Amino acid sequence: MKRLTILGSTGSIGTQAIDVIASRPGEFRVVALCAGRNVARLAAQAQALRPELVVVSDEAEARALAPGLPVGTRVAFGRDGLVEAARHPEADLVVCGLVGALGIEPAYAAVDAGKDVALANKEALVAAGEFVIARARATGALILPVDSEHNALHQCLRGENADEIKMLWLTASGGPFRGLSREALACATPAQALRHPTWVMGQKITIDSATLMNKGLEVIEARWLFDVGQDRIRVVVHPESVVHSLVEFVDGSFKAQLGVTDMRHPIQYALTYPHRLPSTLEPFDLVAAGPLRFEAPDSEKFPCLPLAYEALARGGAAPAVLNAANEVAVAAFLAGRAGFLDIPATIRGALTRHGDAPAATLDDILAADRLARKTAADLLVSGVKS
Amino acid sequence: MKRLTILGSTGSIGTQAIDVIASRPGEFRVVALCAGRNVARLAAQAQALRPELVVVSDEAEARALAPGLPVGTRVAFGRDGLVEAARHPEADLVVCGLVGALGIEPAYAAVDAGKDVALANKEALVAAGEFVIARARATGALILPVDSEHNALHQCLRGENADEIKMLWLTASGGPFRGLSREALACATPAQALRHPTWVMGQKITIDSATLMNKGLEVIEARWLFDVGQDRIRVVVHPESVVHSLVEFVDGSFKAQLGVTDMRHPIQYALTYPHRLPSTLEPFDLVAAGPLRFEAPDSEKFPCLPLAYEALARGGAAPAVLNAANEVAVAAFLAGRAGFLDIPATIRGALTRHGDAPAATLDDILAADRLARKTAADLLVSGVKS
Repeated sequence: MKRLTILGSTGSIGTQAIDVIASRPGEFRVVALCAGRNVARLAAQAQALRPELVVVSDEAEARALAPGLPVGTRVAFGRDGLVEAARHPEADLVVCGLVGALGIEPAYAAVDAGKDVALANKEALVAAGEFVIARARATGALILPVDSEHNALHQCLRGENADEIKMLWLTASGGPFRGLSREALACATPAQALRHPTWVMGQKITIDSATLMNKGLEVIEARWLFDVGQDRIRVVVHPESVVHSLVEFVDGSFKAQLGVTDMRHPIQYALTYPHRLPSTLEPFDLVAAGPLRFEAPDSEKFPCLPLAYEALARGGAAPAVLNAANEVAVAAFLAGRAGFLDIPATIRGALTRHGDAPAATLDDILAADRLARKTAADLLVSGVKS
Repeated sequence: MKRLTILGSTGSIGTQAIDVIASRPGEFRVVALCAGRNVARLAAQAQALRPELVVVSDEAEARALAPGLPVGTRVAFGRDGLVEAARHPEADLVVCGLVGALGIEPAYAAVDAGKDVALANKEALVAAGEFVIARARATGALILPVDSEHNALHQCLRGENADEIKMLWLTASGGPFRGLSREALACATPAQALRHPTWVMGQKITIDSATLMNKGLEVIEARWLFDVGQDRIRVVVHPESVVHSLVEFVDGSFKAQLGVTDMRHPIQYALTYPHRLPSTLEPFDLVAAGPLRFEAPDSEKFPCLPLAYEALARGGAAPAVLNAANEVAVAAFLAGRAGFLDIPATIRGALTRHGDAPAATLDDILAADRLARKTAADLLVSGVKS
């Protein structure tokens, strides 16, 4: 039986991970659950899964939660609580399902404690990939990507030699705005951007998918996960989202992973690795999937993608700055306080100001993240030039 | 440096294997070459590659060849010569590029001698898969499939657990007659059947591709190569021939191998396994490949495919009988002595008569093969009912 900590248990990844666990009785035991402010849902999860520890965002939430917990479940809160859950001595694997930079420290803590990690929280690698990966290598912790693209690459790389990779090809659905004019993009609303054509995901990642920043973040994530230079990572638009990514090898052979667009598949893969267990989900029908198309991405209309490559090329804290400014700009867009094209403009402004921030330690990265957030917020208030 | 025997060196697979060897100087040494009657080409190959042994079909050809050979190259002939080359003490790997049942004994001899085998000669597994595979397991010989479909499956199965396979999906181009009416099929000529839409291959296999028997033989081959029951092997028509085959796993994930339709790719894979070496061939362009389509095969119009499943279900010598009758009928079709639909009719007739022939030993299999050939020839002369 595998023992799990779930960070972000009430979010999109967390609830789907719990679905997978429920579909495989006897395979898993949950030792810790962490969520933000959705106390009612967390209490229900705790009743069902009876973890040793639950963590919420602050003390007030912890007090609100306590009466709803089963006997034997302890409550903690805040950053310290997250880190405690990530290092929980009984956990074999930590599901990192937090959204944004909040997940960096707990992800680092988990690999530092030698825990295997099912990583959905891509920002942990985007901002702090060098540190997280180096620490995981040192402790022997496995990082199992849950992002469907990296999960696909992980599957395609089983049994292969890393030095025989020629190119990693990340597929992109193209998002809801594929083919739209720049004028139409300037007027795009949150409601339009949230209408993703193929995947059901959290709000932040759905907006990132509309700007193609999601793919930019994935390029950076892939660079660290698979130790491959940015010149060997490319994006290809694949509107059907059936091929989840491909690996091209030096001998000219491509391997692809395909399946239905349901995050419970990559989650289950990460939870059960190195084994594959029968799935209770609807099987994939290759014939019904229809013709599979592949196109080059439009970097001019979707500048977040080249911005991500630029941040990766600058290195150091630049990807953390890119990620932080993006989080702030996406939140402002969702709140109706920024236009769709203000997102890349805000990121560009933050990169110009802080792209060379110090990056010698994880604390430097977290400081650059905070600085970029402040600058991004200021830029949005003062009216960033998009 | 890997030392090779090449069986069928002047044929389609053999010459392409020599192309691959020539593109990687210093990686390979050829110790034996075997061909049929193309003495001029064989002599030129021997001059270039300086093998220790060359083998031709009979004594007369051997005598004709001898003066053209370099100093130090010995000549042998016939079945004994083939088997000697397959067991050559200096060979690490035997390229089995013979066509048809002729290749069964040398393939068996190679694995019996513990040689790894790059197997293009699918009939060796179709007719005698149980014996060849059991012997390879006993001696530790690796069988590396060169058929693009099985090569694709081999690539997709690297690093995977065999008991987690749900289904092997063999892709079929559909051949030149995809979508044709039964009436049109009845009048199809060899010239039409030889116009393969996507692959350049030998004549026999190109006709097999037009009847879908090639796919039927591949189903049988896959059954032995990957130790998977016939209910877990399916065929899907994919007219672009870009996806060379797919594996479906129990967790719902599919893995596919893709690339250009050039047999030198799977040949190189087999020659350099477990490594992948840079290819000098044109790279694959996923975007230019266009939409990738997948359809169910039409088993009614192409009865060779269900006949192959039937032979596999009967087991024993039935696949050898199917294969032998097919070889005879295809030769008759190519010679203008039989119609296109006489091919499945001949096979059906041979299976009815000899499907239960004894199959306790490899000699039984070879006897069933001879018997089926005679019956098929008789059926064709007497006018088989198609």
